[in-house]
Formats: sequence, structure tokens, C-alpha cells
Amino acid sequence: MTMNGARSLLRTLVDHDVDVCFANPGTSEMHFVAALDDEPRMRAVLGLFEGVVTGAADGYARMTGRPAATLLHLGPGLGNGIANLHNARRAHVPMINIVGDHATYHQALDAPLQSDIETLAANVSGWVRRSGSTDALARDTADAVVAARTPPGEIATLILPADVSWGEGGQTVARQPFDRPLAPDLATIEAAAKILCSGEPSAILVGNDIMRDELSLALLDAVAASTGSKVLAEVFPTRIRRGAGIAAADRLAYLAEFAAMQLDGLRHLILLGAQSPVTFFAYPGKASDLVPDGCDVHVVTDVREDGPEAVEALADAVGVTVADARLAPSSRSDRPTGELTGAALAAAVSATLPEDAIVVDEAQTGGIWASPATAGCPPHDWLTLTGGSIGFGMPCATGAAVACPDRPVINLQADGSAMYTAQALWTQAREGLDVTTVIFANRSYAILNMELSRVGVESPGPIAKSMLDLTGPELDFVALARGMGVPAVRPEDADSFTAALERAAAEPGPHLIEAVIPSGF
Amino acid sequence: MTMNGARSLLRTLVDHDVDVCFANPGTSEMHFVAALDDEPRMRAVLGLFEGVVTGAADGYARMTGRPAATLLHLGPGLGNGIANLHNARRAHVPMINIVGDHATYHQALDAPLQSDIETLAANVSGWVRRSGSTDALARDTADAVVAARTPPGEIATLILPADVSWGEGGQTVARQPFDRPLAPDLATIEAAAKILCSGEPSAILVGNDIMRDELSLALLDAVAASTGSKVLAEVFPTRIRRGAGIAAADRLAYLAEFAAMQLDGLRHLILLGAQSPVTFFAYPGKASDLVPDGCDVHVVTDVREDGPEAVEALADAVGVTVADARLAPSSRSDRPTGELTGAALAAAVSATLPEDAIVVDEAQTGGIWASPATAGCPPHDWLTLTGGSIGFGMPCATGAAVACPDRPVINLQADGSAMYTAQALWTQAREGLDVTTVIFANRSYAILNMELSRVGVESPGPIAKSMLDLTGPELDFVALARGMGVPAVRPEDADSFTAALERAAAEPGPHLIEAVIPSGF
Repeated sequence: MTMNGARSLLRTLVDHDVDVCFANPGTSEMHFVAALDDEPRMRAVLGLFEGVVTGAADGYARMTGRPAATLLHLGPGLGNGIANLHNARRAHVPMINIVGDHATYHQALDAPLQSDIETLAANVSGWVRRSGSTDALARDTADAVVAARTPPGEIATLILPADVSWGEGGQTVARQPFDRPLAPDLATIEAAAKILCSGEPSAILVGNDIMRDELSLALLDAVAASTGSKVLAEVFPTRIRRGAGIAAADRLAYLAEFAAMQLDGLRHLILLGAQSPVTFFAYPGKASDLVPDGCDVHVVTDVREDGPEAVEALADAVGVTVADARLAPSSRSDRPTGELTGAALAAAVSATLPEDAIVVDEAQTGGIWASPATAGCPPHDWLTLTGGSIGFGMPCATGAAVACPDRPVINLQADGSAMYTAQALWTQAREGLDVTTVIFANRSYAILNMELSRVGVESPGPIAKSMLDLTGPELDFVALARGMGVPAVRPEDADSFTAALERAAAEPGPHLIEAVIPSGF
Repeated sequence: MTMNGARSLLRTLVDHDVDVCFANPGTSEMHFVAALDDEPRMRAVLGLFEGVVTGAADGYARMTGRPAATLLHLGPGLGNGIANLHNARRAHVPMINIVGDHATYHQALDAPLQSDIETLAANVSGWVRRSGSTDALARDTADAVVAARTPPGEIATLILPADVSWGEGGQTVARQPFDRPLAPDLATIEAAAKILCSGEPSAILVGNDIMRDELSLALLDAVAASTGSKVLAEVFPTRIRRGAGIAAADRLAYLAEFAAMQLDGLRHLILLGAQSPVTFFAYPGKASDLVPDGCDVHVVTDVREDGPEAVEALADAVGVTVADARLAPSSRSDRPTGELTGAALAAAVSATLPEDAIVVDEAQTGGIWASPATAGCPPHDWLTLTGGSIGFGMPCATGAAVACPDRPVINLQADGSAMYTAQALWTQAREGLDVTTVIFANRSYAILNMELSRVGVESPGPIAKSMLDLTGPELDFVALARGMGVPAVRPEDADSFTAALERAAAEPGPHLIEAVIPSGF
């Protein structure tokens, strides 16, 4: 059978377990789009903007551990996807970008959409290749999947010239094996165990694959309980498993002032799949490195190594089992009443969070109460803004819902951040995804009001303040959601907000709830 | 007086006639934001998304010939602006991007927002510099403006580490001179005049600064009338001046099939500030180069040279004056009645276009009738999608309105393209800009339906077709506009559409009119 490049590419992807493609195609991708009908094993999900596409692929990968493909239109299409690719790169997730390009012979002509795709791709990708011929495309595609699945996961970008896609002579390739995580170094783990058992003030800072593994969290807690040390989680985890019956790992605080308190007095900081802690931004006259003076940092594993295996070895070395772990007790907040505030929203989420929910957290300042309030809720996964590039929440929730159609997704979403990629709502409606978006509408870039004083601006003038203010005009997220086919409400008090959350959970498909709350803490 | 870097930067910008800054700041830009109150000559315009910011700076530059500044937050912020920077680069407009970055000493720490800003910037910029110290910042800023104003205009990106911005020791610099366009080569122009006078079938293809200059257009038409040649304009001009009393330059068609007809039989193609014509995309089995066999291409000026001066010299060499030009007669379409169609919308725009309007055209397939229908309307400027990266229209209209507060702006806007950067509506409302957005709502990526068959896909399957379909759910632009504070209506027939256009023109501030039209031609 003869097969064009696009069909060969799609078949190779699916044969390597890549069976979802988030797409925003253009003319140069039309053969890929046409080939979708010949490869029904591939699910194509349309996004109206590329930041939705790449953020959804991130959310999908966070929940499945497998890459989705994205389909993007030349350099500008990739450009629009860069911000959420940045977050995905920081999340260490696997992903395969298929970036359509002009036909090979068209590229020298400097047509309007010609640009240097390679430099953009390299900015966010661990692997970049331009496929040079139709008969090599299957091999290139398999290599892209293998690269994407290199532990812990990386972004592979395959540039696909239109004639390579439309040309005949597409091949098939045998399924390639994927790399396993590296084995952790046992001597290093034993040395860490000795330090922990020394009685000197110590903490274990964990990240990556450990955070989503209940057994690892329990064993780490058992180690901490037995040695008098503590377990901390990195500030913005890719995915953390938490809730009643699961050992809790306190996340390091975003605010350096609080993180410094968490780390104060430590003599040893042991890193398991996490980076040594630094502040998110630099602040005049303050240290960027959060490691206290006199504290030694010990790198036990990095993200390429098998975290759960390292934790098991550490527990063995310390001599503890899961039976020694302190599991979070079951608890929920009471249903809140009265005014809508960030704390009331957190209580409502805590009172109603469904079993096995996926929480996508881009609530920023308005949402700081949500994580502590839900620590005793039924077990759930919590996804955060790994790379700090806002506009992550709504796309990520979309991808998580595609990945896990039987699990409810709750997107806690700041209003300012929502406006970067709100087009995700349309995809949620189109696909009937079970996502409940809660807009924390403080009508301000509230985090910047806080940052303004943290960087030393004591009395900002009216122009500076106006640049952080979103009230003129006020955004109406109920109208925006309805404009994209998502039913939406704006409850006026905590009771009706809680009831709206319950209704959204009970009905299939997407919902949006706008909650107008005060700005600031 | 002591001055920090941010104040020195702002003062230097304003001293060099850069007095508008489209901004989407984050923590690393807070000192720039704080300094705005000390430099009231700078107007800061907030955008909710960076693609709005860069597209607005493009529209501003197209109308003023001067650069605006943009303020962007690290690599991801610049990434979100890349698509419209691509269009601006293709438009040859001046622009100055100020990209905030981490403090110099923070960059080695690999904090979450750390990325390689230089490679992103280089992708779209003619000039890139990372400012290394507060005392050099004024000089760096002046250099950026000089670079941006290098004819015909280029994108200059200044990377601004936070500590360079907040540090004391900011300097002032004397105002620097800007380069003038290069003088065209008279011998080349005389040779072109000889070819035109030879009687062999010839056309002049014009671009860049010539297109916006009424005198140049008249002289070119006089040349064409006298020599029996014709004048063509590039497919997607940065800004073309047109209407009653102005000589018309027919734009080369987007569709290669039509462009080929326009170029058919030519023996000579004379380029004045335009590139040799190529197809937008490659199509299987079709030529990408549009120059007919046997046609010689003569490059008379490129974009760095003074186009109007070249045209004047050409007219002198041919021996014609403006008196020989055929100026477009005054004419408007009758007010349309009946069903809403692309043709009816075009007629309504023609019937009502205000004097000296600025038309921003991203209407795609739905809008192909608009340009011919308005050829005899009162004089106006027409701005187009120079780089082919969709999501240009609403931001560009925003910037054009900031540039020309006394001129009405009409944005003819396709629905699919609108969804990339619709956040521009909020900025229009916030700034009270006189922009009327007409949404050509065919509820489809209609251009891709056409392109699907043009790339050789004869019978697309249901999945392929669904990827180009925007009906499930239907987008409601009236709701979307109201959600961002812009009054909006959805007239149901041509009469009420025309009346809505008139109402929008009569009332100050932004308006949106959604017109649901059939997909296709």
C-alpha cells in the first residue's frame, strides 16, 4: 500500500502510544488533517489558539505520563505555544510538537510566513529535528517519541515540511523501546540516610515523580518521623498526590520570607528529584539563594533517576516502612456562609471536592487558602504552574480532562491569568469535558501589587497602580464563558457559590463559576 | 539628581520621540511600572496578553512611522508576542521591545522563569541587546531607538535585567540622529524607465513607503498610463492609501491562480520596494515562483531606499507629472438590503465608510469583497496581514486608534482569527478607543476549507472537516465583547447591519458588530 508522509507519521505516532493530538492547523498542515480520517486511533482535539494546544498537551502528559502530539502552524504558531511549552519544559513532561513548515523548495523564497523555526523550537525543546524526506518521516517520528519519553520526559519538536507530509513513499517502522529512568546511586542514598539519622537538623526536598506516588510520600514521611527531619515539596510541583490517607509533603512557599522560615536552622538539605531552592524572582537587597548559611545541600537524585526507587532504598537504609508514616486525617471545611473571599472559596472547595478530583491551580494570590483547606479532602491530584508563565490553568485543565474522562477536573483560576488563554473554554465545550472553572475575580493583578512593594516600591503613583488594575472595564467571565459555549454563573455569596460548585459537579460537561472577591489578603 | 535605570530608560525613550508604551508587565518590570509616574510624557497602555501588546505597537507604527515601546515579561512574555512581532517584522515597522529579565546575578540560578531570551528575540528582531549596567542603560536605549528607526524600520529588542532597572546611577544621553532612507540609484531608475518606454509588456510591483504616499501612487499611475504598463501593489501591504481622488494600485491576489492572471504575458517586472512575487504557500504540482516564464525581474529599489524619491525620479525619466494620473472616481455602494453575506457587508462598509478612516483588514475569505467595494470611498488607509500570522487585526486596530485618536478605525475581522487576540477589546474599552470591529462570522476556518482542496485533498473525511468547523459550539462574539466591556450587537439583515455601522461611527468609543454570514464564496 502506498502511503503519504502524513499517514506514515500518524501511524507511527499511534503505534508508539501517542493517540491524542491537540491541534491548531493551517494550510501547511492540511495533509496531516486529511490523514486523520485514515487513522481513527488518533483523537484530534481542536484548539482556537496555540497556547491552548500546548498547555493541554502539558496537562494530558501530567496525568498520563505519556506524550500527546501538538499540531502547530509554522514559526508563529509555535511562537504562540511557547509560553505553555516553557511551563511544560519546567514540568519535565513528555510532548511531541509537530510544526508544519513550508515545502522544502519553498523555504528559500522568503514567503510571508517564512521564519526561523529551529531557534524557536530549541528554546523549549530537548530534541529538535527537521524531517528531510517522506521515506525518513516514520523513523524521525519514532525518534521524536523516544526522545520525548526519555526520563523524566522532554519536549521533542519535529518540523514537518509540507512536501514531506504530502509526498508518497511513507514507511512504517517497528515500535521502538523507550528508556527507563536511571537507577539511583545506592551509596549516595546510604550517605543521605546516615545524615538523616545523625540527629542534625535536616530536610528532604522532593520533586518530580516522587510527588505523585502515594507509596513514596508515605515512605518519606516514615523516614522523617523516624529521624526527626522533615519533608518538603518543591514550590510548584508538576503533580502532587494528596488528601486523606496520604502522607503530606509541605510545599515550599512561593514567598521567600516564608520559605526562609521553612528552611531556617537546617544543617542539611537532601534533594530527591528537586532543584536546590532559589527565590522565584530577585529582590533588591535580598538573597536569591534560599539555602541558609551553614546548610549543606546533598543531591541524591536528579529528575532523570527513578525517584520512587530511590525513596524505597532510603527507607530501607533508615529502616522504616509505610507503617511508620503519618497519613493525613480525613477532614473537610464546613460549608462557608456570608461574603465571598479567597478563604470562603477555599472552604467551599474543601467542603465539596469530589473523590479523585484533579485540581489545576492557577489561582495565584486569591487561591493561597485552597491548598491548606483541602489537605484532608478525599484523595486527589494537584497540578501547579511549574514554569511561572501565566495562562497555564485553563489549557492544562482541558488536557487533564481529555486524559482522564472519568475524573472531575477543578480549575482554580485567577482572573488576570485566565485572560491569556481563555479560548480553552471553547475546547472544553466542544469536547464536553468535565471541567469546573472557578474564577477568582479580584479584578487586579493582585500578585503584582504585592510584588511592587516587595521589590522596594513603597508608594506607587496612580499610573503604576492603574497598570495593575483590571476594573476599567470589569471583565465579565460569565459573558466570556457563554460566548464560548460554557454555562456560567456568578454567585453573590458563599452559600450560593458552594451550591454552584455542587451543581457543576453533578452535571456533565464544563462549567464556569465567577467569584468576585476582594483583592489582597 | 540621582535616577534609577528605569527612569533613565523612560526619559531616554521619550527624548527620542518614543512616548507610547504598550505593556503587559510582571514582577521583573515593576520598577519600570513605578517609574511611569515620574515620566508623564510616556503614555502606558495596558494589554491583557502580549500578542495584543506587540500587535498594537505594530498598528501604532504603521500609522505614525514612529516606534512605540512594548513592555514584556521575560522569555514567555516575549514568546506570547512573537506572532504579531512576526507580522511587524514583515511590515518593516519600527518597534522597541523592552523585555524584563531576572536580575543579572539571579540568572545562573535557573529559577522557574529562566529561559534563553536572546534566541527568541533574535527570531523577530533586527537588533538585540542585553543591557549590562544601569549607567549604560540610557545609551543602550538610545541605540535601540536608532536601530528601530533604521529605514524602513526594524524591531529592536532591549533585554532589561531587573537590577539594571532598579539600580541607581541612571544617565541621560543627548538625542541621537536617525538614519534617513538610502538614496535610490538614478542609473537603475533610468534603465527601468527605458524598459517601461520600450512598449514591451511591463508591470511595476510596489511596496513599502510608496503605498502610503498619494503623490507616489499618482506618479506611478501616470507612468503606467503613459507607457502602457500597469502598477501592482504587493499582496499584503503595511498600509495603503486609497479612495476617491487617489490613484489606485491593484493588489496582487492572494490566490496564485488569480495572481498568475495578473502577471500573465509580462516581459518585465519592475520592483519598487517590493519582493519578487511568490505564492503564500507551496501547493503540490504548482510553481511557487509567480514570475512568468520569459519575464525579467528588475530590482529598482528595496525597502531601505527612499521609495517616493525613486518614484519621482522614475516619473521624471518617463516625462510624466501627476496631471497624467487617473485618479479613482468617487463612488459608494448602495445600501445593501436582504441577507447578510460577505458581499452585503462590503456594500454596507462602502456605503458608510467615514472620511479618513483607518481600515484594519483581517477578514480573510469573508472579506474579499470589501477592498474592491471601497475603492471609491472617501480617502482612507488600509492595513493588512503582512506576515500571515493570524490574530493581527484587533491588536493592530487598537494601536492604530492610539496613534490616531481623531480618526475612526474599522476592523474587518474574521471570526477564527479574532479568537487569537480578542483580549484587545478590553484595551479598546479601557482607553475609549474609536474602533468598530466587524466580525465576519462564517463559523469556520473557511480559508482552510479552500486550502484543503488547493493542496490536493479532494474529498476530505468527516474528521478533517470537523477540524475546520467552528460551530460546535458557536462562538458568540456579542457575549465575548460585552465580557470585555465593549458594546456589541448582532444584526440579522443587511439593513440593520448598515444601521449598526452608522451608530457605531456616531458614538465615541469601541463597538463590535457580529455579522453571521455563510461560509465559502
